[in-house]
Amino acid sequence: MNTFGEHWSFTSFGESHGVAIGGVLDGVPAGLRIDFAMIRSELERRSGKGVVGASARAKNEPDEVEWLSGVMDGVTLGTPIAFIIRNKDARPEDYAWMKDTYRVGHADKVYEQKYGIRDWRGGGRASARETAARVVAGCMAKQELAQKGITIQAALVQVGAETDPEKFADVIAAYQKEGDSIGGIVECRVKGLPVGVGEPIFDKLQAHLAFAIMSINACKGFEYGTGFGGVTQSGSAINAISGGIAGGISDGTELFFRCVFKPTPSTPKAGVKGRHDACVATRAVPVVEAMTALAIVNLI
Amino acid sequence: MNTFGEHWSFTSFGESHGVAIGGVLDGVPAGLRIDFAMIRSELERRSGKGVVGASARAKNEPDEVEWLSGVMDGVTLGTPIAFIIRNKDARPEDYAWMKDTYRVGHADKVYEQKYGIRDWRGGGRASARETAARVVAGCMAKQELAQKGITIQAALVQVGAETDPEKFADVIAAYQKEGDSIGGIVECRVKGLPVGVGEPIFDKLQAHLAFAIMSINACKGFEYGTGFGGVTQSGSAINAISGGIAGGISDGTELFFRCVFKPTPSTPKAGVKGRHDACVATRAVPVVEAMTALAIVNLI
Amino acid sequence: MNTFGEHWSFTSFGESHGVAIGGVLDGVPAGLRIDFAMIRSELERRSGKGVVGASARAKNEPDEVEWLSGVMDGVTLGTPIAFIIRNKDARPEDYAWMKDTYRVGHADKVYEQKYGIRDWRGGGRASARETAARVVAGCMAKQELAQKGITIQAALVQVGAETDPEKFADVIAAYQKEGDSIGGIVECRVKGLPVGVGEPIFDKLQAHLAFAIMSINACKGFEYGTGFGGVTQSGSAINAISGGIAGGISDGTELFFRCVFKPTPSTPKAGVKGRHDACVATRAVPVVEAMTALAIVNLI
Amino acid sequence: MNTFGEHWSFTSFGESHGVAIGGVLDGVPAGLRIDFAMIRSELERRSGKGVVGASARAKNEPDEVEWLSGVMDGVTLGTPIAFIIRNKDARPEDYAWMKDTYRVGHADKVYEQKYGIRDWRGGGRASARETAARVVAGCMAKQELAQKGITIQAALVQVGAETDPEKFADVIAAYQKEGDSIGGIVECRVKGLPVGVGEPIFDKLQAHLAFAIMSINACKGFEYGTGFGGVTQSGSAINAISGGIAGGISDGTELFFRCVFKPTPSTPKAGVKGRHDACVATRAVPVVEAMTALAIVNLI
Repeated sequence: MNTFGEHWSFTSFGESHGVAIGGVLDGVPAGLRIDFAMIRSELERRSGKGVVGASARAKNEPDEVEWLSGVMDGVTLGTPIAFIIRNKDARPEDYAWMKDTYRVGHADKVYEQKYGIRDWRGGGRASARETAARVVAGCMAKQELAQKGITIQAALVQVGAETDPEKFADVIAAYQKEGDSIGGIVECRVKGLPVGVGEPIFDKLQAHLAFAIMSINACKGFEYGTGFGGVTQSGSAINAISGGIAGGISDGTELFFRCVFKPTPSTPKAGVKGRHDACVATRAVPVVEAMTALAIVNLI
Repeated sequence: MNTFGEHWSFTSFGESHGVAIGGVLDGVPAGLRIDFAMIRSELERRSGKGVVGASARAKNEPDEVEWLSGVMDGVTLGTPIAFIIRNKDARPEDYAWMKDTYRVGHADKVYEQKYGIRDWRGGGRASARETAARVVAGCMAKQELAQKGITIQAALVQVGAETDPEKFADVIAAYQKEGDSIGGIVECRVKGLPVGVGEPIFDKLQAHLAFAIMSINACKGFEYGTGFGGVTQSGSAINAISGGIAGGISDGTELFFRCVFKPTPSTPKAGVKGRHDACVATRAVPVVEAMTALAIVNLI
Repeated sequence: MNTFGEHWSFTSFGESHGVAIGGVLDGVPAGLRIDFAMIRSELERRSGKGVVGASARAKNEPDEVEWLSGVMDGVTLGTPIAFIIRNKDARPEDYAWMKDTYRVGHADKVYEQKYGIRDWRGGGRASARETAARVVAGCMAKQELAQKGITIQAALVQVGAETDPEKFADVIAAYQKEGDSIGGIVECRVKGLPVGVGEPIFDKLQAHLAFAIMSINACKGFEYGTGFGGVTQSGSAINAISGGIAGGISDGTELFFRCVFKPTPSTPKAGVKGRHDACVATRAVPVVEAMTALAIVNLI
Repeated sequence: MNTFGEHWSFTSFGESHGVAIGGVLDGVPAGLRIDFAMIRSELERRSGKGVVGASARAKNEPDEVEWLSGVMDGVTLGTPIAFIIRNKDARPEDYAWMKDTYRVGHADKVYEQKYGIRDWRGGGRASARETAARVVAGCMAKQELAQKGITIQAALVQVGAETDPEKFADVIAAYQKEGDSIGGIVECRVKGLPVGVGEPIFDKLQAHLAFAIMSINACKGFEYGTGFGGVTQSGSAINAISGGIAGGISDGTELFFRCVFKPTPSTPKAGVKGRHDACVATRAVPVVEAMTALAIVNLI
């Protein structure tokens, strides 16, 4: 339900305008020295600080992590690591209008239908704010993987029809100016992955990656290797692009995949008040890395 | 590892050229009357009988299911349902050359690297033959869902660059004639799904569907709703295509998604002996339905 | 690892002398009104307040629960419920001597062997303090079960050789006076359990209860129905004591079981400093109820 | 439901008077050479051949294992190992009277209440016959453990009030002569277990052992170390009997535990037709070893 993974088991909790969001990461081996500076930096990256088109809340609210357990003198104890990020800039009053209204293109209505009750204060669990906890857990997974020589690097590779990174900021700024939003594609590459990660039948590496990535808000598609574009290639001509996976198992070459994020539908142009992003794909980049790290660390 | 799902838990077993393939389906409620004719028909559909470009083995070997447990007088007992399909047309000798050779684009090599041992008789677990067991289990899931008014229908919607279904047979025949193969895209639609299937954070409906579909051999991508094409749409203009899911939870509208299958690289043209398909996407259609049914029945 | 149950999934965290202990309870349905007074009362019962022979720390440190998520206006939201209890009376300096010493009969040594690192501050995770989080989670399970007419009641039924409850306080006081400790047996009865809880083979009701109860510190045995005493009865004469379970499934009669707690070996008499209990079985009573409630709510 | 363990995952299937019973063992590493002779010998031990008071069916029906997958030339492939034992001596007609009758002390009635349907042919899943599949899986676990220097040895240590093994046969024969049955206690010892098996909180070694053992039919209690008898010992005097576990984790000393089996209530004396055992504890011995092996192999 709110837990990802069986070996590095990450449980996420918290409403966006409640007391705090946070998580518990169980299964982290003892003796891992935590790189707190890297976690701060990744949270800032997720918050959209310095990013064109990122929403106001994200930029105003530095995410300060309180460590509750599992760490002594900066080193993991092998026990569950619990942490929280308090919601300092929560403004439930900004969302009072939502109490009796469902935003178009959001989960408000299905939540109320499913649970019969809803935390209307800004999206509750459905808020993008929840991804901050994923980033903290993902950072620890990245640190563990880095010790094994495995690095994960995601990047925005398309905004609308634009594929030249140098022009992304301009494109996004233009949509922001009009109170509108636009979609984007994120590509992720994993280097140093040893042969043998993933299982042959259901627990294929690509299946676990797709599961992890498709769990990110606004993600509408996942592809690896030749992806959707490969449909027009013939078997004899298909280039040897494995995407790093053969038969569900990593083959020792660089792993890469792509995923697409739709534009947020609740924009000023659509008449929706509040703080929103002109291109959510930009802030999704560290979240894609975090979920990739969690997926891989659970399979190794 | 070889088990899919926690509520309708399906465990698959069997090597393609061993004694038998089969499965155990645990969690099926007591009292479900099994539609054996539908299962035979779906297995025939998967076998490629009457389908242009399907491999010889598939067509020559009718899949006869032996029911070992869990069923009395055609009705489920609420106990685990075990079944096998014997490998009548197994020809390990056809694959003797593979004992010391790895086929390009197949999992042969990583299997040997991962396990240190490999059933070289025709791909072992990696064979497409394993999907017959998925189809049997998926049929039972479809029967359970049908009782709740939920129907699943997949279809081939693209072969190479061709999108007109009337021309698919010709396109595939042309590749087959040249000893080559081509990719394809399958679309799947689910009708009658009630509001509320799926969970908000990690266990989103789309994440479970992607996991199920990406576990099918040769599948290289999954998308739903606006998918990858939606990247160029703006938030204000984006049409209301939810794909049937909001915030990870079914919203009561028709669910639909698409997935892409690469062409098999082991073709006569590429110098690989054996029995192969000119377009594996054709035979993947019932497997897509089966995995969709298993994913949904596990979330309901 | 630190999670109990798949439906009402409870994750426990926290070291006894760290910042806080706490837990996350996922899977609680929306709309349950939490009885905070009952939780305070059960925590006080666990703390040993007013109980003869209970350790000083337990009595001095009222356990105040901070609710972090999943609850709005005292009602559950259907999202994960996170809570913490801060370690106000933590006195790591009392345990400084333990940094380089392993206490006899405790887990200190195996922890260090297993993890290579150890929070020496008072037992870390192995401390009985961790059970406070179980009691909080168990209270919510009890409240859910009470709504279904199911009640759970445990009691101390034996202390040393004494079986008359009126004399328990005297027996314990005598051991406390000598700086010693004594074992005890707790009996638990569950009323109102419907027919059909539990599964026939591995997931038998008694197996899940035994798993839950044997996970409590110092518990050395579990029996239900005729128990160990039944070994001398013949099949024809065996009275119809089912203990509430037939074939692994509740049969609609009252469920009852017994469990035994060994005396703590780290006593003043044994030369161990710190705050300890003369009969840990007394404070185990609410923990037995909590784990029983969690086991049952996960099977229903 | 019918699956035990997450790493060596064992799924059991089959009704006692259906086509076959069997199992799938997933997670067994590749390269393990199976000792088929040991499996035959253990099945014979379970069948009660040569054991006083064992039921007729058990002795008449040699359990022949058909291996369906996962094994090539006697060596495991790392893929799921499926096997079946056909029910040759099934006599559903012997049980026709049970179609409309519930046997006292058996699960017949709760099964029908729980599932609304019941395989009345001799107990269905509830039959002791199901344990043959456990023994096969347990043998493989024992072989894996033996490679690591871990051995498991169980023995009957009490029959009724008798604790002298030399007199067990006479005691059982006396009950059998009268068409009656008697309870028994089995003790199990595990040698060579390394330090560190088990987890500190819920997944304690003793909790997993209790779960495994209490899942055996007719088992009414589990204790380890000082057990129930330790209730009368004081903390200062308690001998250093750890039972091989400290804080839920193996401590490197010999592990031992005891479990009690009630007499079967369906005896000729009680007016129940069919084939039954005068002391089920005798045949439980190899099942206790099997479940112990499966529990431990899943924790290592």
